Amino acid sequence: MAYIKNPALIEQNSFEIIQGIIDEIRPSYVFKSEIEEKIIKRAIHTTADFEYLDILKISEQAVNAISEAIKNGATLYTDTQMALSGINKTKLKAFGCKSACYISEESVVKLAKEKEMTRSMAAVEIAAKEPGEKIFVIGNAPTALYKIIELTQKGELLPAAIVGVPVGFVGAAESKETLAQTNIPYILSQGRKGGSNLAAAIINAVLYAL
Amino acid sequence: MAYIKNPALIEQNSFEIIQGIIDEIRPSYVFKSEIEEKIIKRAIHTTADFEYLDILKISEQAVNAISEAIKNGATLYTDTQMALSGINKTKLKAFGCKSACYISEESVVKLAKEKEMTRSMAAVEIAAKEPGEKIFVIGNAPTALYKIIELTQKGELLPAAIVGVPVGFVGAAESKETLAQTNIPYILSQGRKGGSNLAAAIINAVLYAL
Repeated sequence: MAYIKNPALIEQNSFEIIQGIIDEIRPSYVFKSEIEEKIIKRAIHTTADFEYLDILKISEQAVNAISEAIKNGATLYTDTQMALSGINKTKLKAFGCKSACYISEESVVKLAKEKEMTRSMAAVEIAAKEPGEKIFVIGNAPTALYKIIELTQKGELLPAAIVGVPVGFVGAAESKETLAQTNIPYILSQGRKGGSNLAAAIINAVLYAL
Repeated sequence: MAYIKNPALIEQNSFEIIQGIIDEIRPSYVFKSEIEEKIIKRAIHTTADFEYLDILKISEQAVNAISEAIKNGATLYTDTQMALSGINKTKLKAFGCKSACYISEESVVKLAKEKEMTRSMAAVEIAAKEPGEKIFVIGNAPTALYKIIELTQKGELLPAAIVGVPVGFVGAAESKETLAQTNIPYILSQGRKGGSNLAAAIINAVLYAL
């Protein structure tokens, strides 16, 4: 079995193949900017799904907002351990950033029971009370996204940016439509698709471009 | 903002919506068995991608092999922390199973450097030397899949089963084609698609059916 074993070469080849496929299936496709290209291609790299050419929406301020917050040592809050696992923590730490997922914390479980809400929502409530700049990275729970928007509209939270790509059939698409109507800088996936792997890949794409 | 906040209800609704969409887009689609239905629907639940109706291949012995190994307290080895994070460890522990991902272990980093191989391959070599029944859960690295097959063919490893769903553009599809030609019980995704999230979802589907 002959196969490429060099990780850097595998990644380089992958991105060349992705561009080749785009040239083939969407010859007139134009990326809006270099960084959008990097983000969208990394989304495709992670999912092998070229639908991300069309459904990934990056608000005008989003990349700047995420980049600046990272440079300021923001904390990244994810809704799943899976998204947290996928983020390049070495890169993140180099900027003095922290990352956290509170979904399994005792305080979150308790709060969720008390308030009859999802643990994802309780985790947002607890994160909102912490000091410092915040980037939310949501790949799974529409309820987390709704809670962030709700607290922001109440003035109880000021997220630097949201990567909002929950996947699924109940509330995912709607929660992202709601996010798109806010003033919060966002990167989102329209419709049902998304995921924790995608959420992490998007953050990594911005990190690698810094 | 009115939205469903009950996790059990969200999941139940999701699976009903998935069936509704299948009825609509693939009215003549028939699942081969109840467990295949559960696995494929959970794959769709995790990805919102109905292509998994066609590209998920489950070898005849796979579900039995995974189920029996879990009941025997097998260890699940993943190629990424992300896949490990996504597996329901509470369920797994109830069967006396362990789970591990060695990708960032010092011994793996060292072995990968020495042998000029990927860390994913080195992690398989180290896992292969451990005692006990083994299920491999591969969502990312074709090189891990190739290494498992190579060691198995050499008689140095006897995996109970493989969930082999690496995603990507370099070697992913080919590695899964190679897996399909072995006698190892497998669940795989044909072509480029797959991922750590999918790998975890497949294991969880089998776990929830036990």
